[in-house]
Amino acid sequence: MRILGLDPGSRLLGYGVLERERSGWRRLSSGVLRLKPNDPIPHRLAEAFTAVREIIQLHRPEHVAIEECFVAHSPRSALVLGQVRGVLLLAARLEETELHEFAPRSVKLAAVGNGGASKEQVQAMIPRLLGDCRSGLGADEADALAVAWCCANQLRSPIVRPAGTLRGAAR
Amino acid sequence: MRILGLDPGSRLLGYGVLERERSGWRRLSSGVLRLKPNDPIPHRLAEAFTAVREIIQLHRPEHVAIEECFVAHSPRSALVLGQVRGVLLLAARLEETELHEFAPRSVKLAAVGNGGASKEQVQAMIPRLLGDCRSGLGADEADALAVAWCCANQLRSPIVRPAGTLRGAAR
Repeated sequence: MRILGLDPGSRLLGYGVLERERSGWRRLSSGVLRLKPNDPIPHRLAEAFTAVREIIQLHRPEHVAIEECFVAHSPRSALVLGQVRGVLLLAARLEETELHEFAPRSVKLAAVGNGGASKEQVQAMIPRLLGDCRSGLGADEADALAVAWCCANQLRSPIVRPAGTLRGAAR
Repeated sequence: MRILGLDPGSRLLGYGVLERERSGWRRLSSGVLRLKPNDPIPHRLAEAFTAVREIIQLHRPEHVAIEECFVAHSPRSALVLGQVRGVLLLAARLEETELHEFAPRSVKLAAVGNGGASKEQVQAMIPRLLGDCRSGLGADEADALAVAWCCANQLRSPIVRPAGTLRGAAR
């Protein structure tokens, strides 16, 4: 089983794919897409959409996890972020993955054991959780792996779950 | 020459295609897509994206016009609206149309001659401007035709314009 975690932004877009092995979950692939800040928004949206579809087609995750949006931003930045989020949700839907949304608090709780953890704490914990000693994991990449990790935690606890428990969370 | 105007919403999505004829611009097609309110957001986004791509493929407009977002909403509604807007901008970009954004004030000014006009005034003026006596034009359909009309006005004045004047407005 594979899970793709996404951390959307209008300039940096973090992604991380986790794969389940006998011994636990391991990082299969992760990185950051850098969208050109001088490109018009529609160009950046097309770039993000195409890249995420390609990542899904390459790694074939059954699940895609994304953080619920932090809505304390200004309406202007919420609108811009919403546009990027929209094309990512679209890519996940068109590739027939199962979409899951998690509150930022749940993601931090799963990664650090503390819902109020800092970005730096998430960044420090993710390589340890995945037994992955690669240093220099960027914040956006760590956040994407953290939301995938949170999803992995929820999926693995009840091995058999009633249909629809998580599906449709992304309303 | 053809222009597609779009009025995005998370439940109702207005569209209108104008075509230039010798005598002026006429309405070629218009309507409202009703997105199912009980469907999860990713399903609605996929429905909106597919429908708008199909409208573009059917009518082959060279230009797509959309209102700049009214950002006085709450961050929550800006995020939801942003998601819909994102997939429409993406559809326009992937179909290689030229995208134009207009301030709500410019759209009302073009349609009614008054930047502070009401929705009802726009709804009443659009059929007259297009010499189209069809009654019962809905607000979302009228808004979509109004933004296309605003774009038509800007395109027709200087027949030859310097490259890039409007292109890239959707930043």
